[in-house]
Amino acid sequence: MDETRHNQAASKEPRYTSRLEAFSDGVFAIAITLLVLNIKVPLDLPGGTSLARALLAQWPAYLAFVTSFATIGIMWLNHHRMFNLIARTDQVLYLLNGLLLLGVTFVPFPTELVAEYLLKPGRVTAALVYNGTYVVIAIFFNLLWRFASHNNHLLDRKVRPEWVEGITRQYRFGPIFYLVAFALALVSVPASLVLNLLMAVFFAFTGMEHDRQIDVY
Amino acid sequence: MDETRHNQAASKEPRYTSRLEAFSDGVFAIAITLLVLNIKVPLDLPGGTSLARALLAQWPAYLAFVTSFATIGIMWLNHHRMFNLIARTDQVLYLLNGLLLLGVTFVPFPTELVAEYLLKPGRVTAALVYNGTYVVIAIFFNLLWRFASHNNHLLDRKVRPEWVEGITRQYRFGPIFYLVAFALALVSVPASLVLNLLMAVFFAFTGMEHDRQIDVY
Amino acid sequence: MDETRHNQAASKEPRYTSRLEAFSDGVFAIAITLLVLNIKVPLDLPGGTSLARALLAQWPAYLAFVTSFATIGIMWLNHHRMFNLIARTDQVLYLLNGLLLLGVTFVPFPTELVAEYLLKPGRVTAALVYNGTYVVIAIFFNLLWRFASHNNHLLDRKVRPEWVEGITRQYRFGPIFYLVAFALALVSVPASLVLNLLMAVFFAFTGMEHDRQIDVY
Amino acid sequence: MDETRHNQAASKEPRYTSRLEAFSDGVFAIAITLLVLNIKVPLDLPGGTSLARALLAQWPAYLAFVTSFATIGIMWLNHHRMFNLIARTDQVLYLLNGLLLLGVTFVPFPTELVAEYLLKPGRVTAALVYNGTYVVIAIFFNLLWRFASHNNHLLDRKVRPEWVEGITRQYRFGPIFYLVAFALALVSVPASLVLNLLMAVFFAFTGMEHDRQIDVY
Repeated sequence: MDETRHNQAASKEPRYTSRLEAFSDGVFAIAITLLVLNIKVPLDLPGGTSLARALLAQWPAYLAFVTSFATIGIMWLNHHRMFNLIARTDQVLYLLNGLLLLGVTFVPFPTELVAEYLLKPGRVTAALVYNGTYVVIAIFFNLLWRFASHNNHLLDRKVRPEWVEGITRQYRFGPIFYLVAFALALVSVPASLVLNLLMAVFFAFTGMEHDRQIDVY
Repeated sequence: MDETRHNQAASKEPRYTSRLEAFSDGVFAIAITLLVLNIKVPLDLPGGTSLARALLAQWPAYLAFVTSFATIGIMWLNHHRMFNLIARTDQVLYLLNGLLLLGVTFVPFPTELVAEYLLKPGRVTAALVYNGTYVVIAIFFNLLWRFASHNNHLLDRKVRPEWVEGITRQYRFGPIFYLVAFALALVSVPASLVLNLLMAVFFAFTGMEHDRQIDVY
Repeated sequence: MDETRHNQAASKEPRYTSRLEAFSDGVFAIAITLLVLNIKVPLDLPGGTSLARALLAQWPAYLAFVTSFATIGIMWLNHHRMFNLIARTDQVLYLLNGLLLLGVTFVPFPTELVAEYLLKPGRVTAALVYNGTYVVIAIFFNLLWRFASHNNHLLDRKVRPEWVEGITRQYRFGPIFYLVAFALALVSVPASLVLNLLMAVFFAFTGMEHDRQIDVY
Repeated sequence: MDETRHNQAASKEPRYTSRLEAFSDGVFAIAITLLVLNIKVPLDLPGGTSLARALLAQWPAYLAFVTSFATIGIMWLNHHRMFNLIARTDQVLYLLNGLLLLGVTFVPFPTELVAEYLLKPGRVTAALVYNGTYVVIAIFFNLLWRFASHNNHLLDRKVRPEWVEGITRQYRFGPIFYLVAFALALVSVPASLVLNLLMAVFFAFTGMEHDRQIDVY
């Protein structure tokens, strides 16, 4: 089986996407690493408050950090999956990828917002901005994939229709799920954050069966 | 047609620009991602102000973010286009590329400046610094391209004269357009920002026809 | 000998880990470079305090910077070593690598925490968070390596059992050593930082003998 | 001549330094881009002060930004030059490269320090820290190069002795020149900054003649 794999890989089309992928990887890596700047060291503890207590009190910052880390991580993985099948670029693909990256670089702001306001009035607004950002990014993901896979015009010629359909089907759920998290924020803000975290795990695992087929490619 | 493409790509000269491009990509990716740090979470809301209102009130920060993102994005794309045709480097190219990157890494500062002062006295100064930065970067772009393409001495031998002329012609407009935005800032600062945004879109699309020819290469 | 090396390298399996490694490298490089943001320029010096004295007074920030730099550096090196032997990826490997990177991107926060509190009440809490972060990262390293090397299912087929055992043996010490540093923090916080620094040097040199064998590969 | 070049390049030894170079490039790119964070937007202008005047008053921040940008840029270029000739790595090379990167990631701190104190008491201390950082980095550069080139043990076998001697000779001046800038800071701090800037330009151009020979390689 390893031989087969080697041969198939060798017969892939030449890729024209490497610098686009490298740039996108850089943006994902920086955005995911900047998230930690939103966790602030507690200063000027009021008398009687221990550092341990002050650190525990800012649990919304950790929850927001982990949730955004997982979400950007999954977005990177999905970007990687898509471009595993995309062999060529054109100007519109650059623009759609640019919109996607615009959304990704924006994530640290709503992350800090939701961390700051999770326990204060304004929490619903903060959570709607946070989840709204993900809804928009999920829509950009769909646009990029639909455009690239339309008539397979930017895909590798060896890509099989069922792989394309598998990704299309999975991505369709993205905006819907993030809209559910958006709506849930109106009821419970922490619950909507936890749902985001669960969705990241879900997307990681639903990707698994497709990958099992595609990775051999 | 795909065969042709493959063959032509295979006959490109060896590239001596890969580490220069990787470093430049890194700088572009970091500069574009740092822009979000200029969007501040509103703190200490005065009584009666909702978070939603406070977020809307800082629309200049979002406008500056999107404009700078689009502009750095287009600069990256143009850099990518130029180095698609440049096959060799020399010391002067390193210096000119360094000046270009100096301009790009500086962008987050005028972005924050214009976001902070868009609604305050000082807005014209802020917008002149912002647009002036882009004028200077556009000049560096022209210097780099003119130098590299002079007698084709650093270009791939297969590059066709009409491609070079196409890029030269397009780049010539850069400093002029940014000077117009600079002048417009004296009349209306938000209008000059919006013009910058429109120019990014314009440069993306005018690049399209050249790319259609060059990408096959 | 150089010929042998060349031939062996040429017969390595094709790698399916390059984009994962590039992304991880980006995250390591950014996290290690962000550490410097934790060193603050002293402002508003009280009358009679020279800048030199103010700079010396913040020695905990330098110690924390160097210790975290060395630790992230060694983690990068170990990541590089592991993926020198790993030839394939799967979904679980992505998840485990994601957990590892989550730990790495978090490091700037406990670094700032320990720098801020090293000379204040709360120093033990700060040091426990700092060392606890490293314990958790060391555990993730073990999980990733055990998973990838289990029955060699993701390793290059040419990897020799003694190399795998060598790495497994070395990694086993990681969590234990960091637990010792964790415990030492209860006695002396600066001593636990210095122990971390020494461990980074230790891991660098114990890796040497394995590398001498594996690098030829 | 282009044919010759192609053939020589094709006969280079396989490189074992690519991930080390990629990681180092990332660190250089991030450190150089973080410098802009040291330029602060002037806030709370005292009555009667225009924004233009406030921006001009912080000229030390721009001077420090440009000087550090040029210096890190030249360091990156020299790193690139060295690793153009280095074909193999070992553990000691990783450690020496780690020390070099430790110095490079530290640069944003003394840059902010000198920008803050250039016009205040403490300016000499700030400039000594700034120049001292460069002295140390220049020493690390020498150590790395001397180690790698000692008996050519890590260099590509095709490297000619005169190239090695050329680089060795040029690097020897580094610590001396930076020591001169260090001493000059005792007399005039702005002059020492300008000297640093001139040295960056000097190193760029003295590298040119060697590059003309080596680049053909």
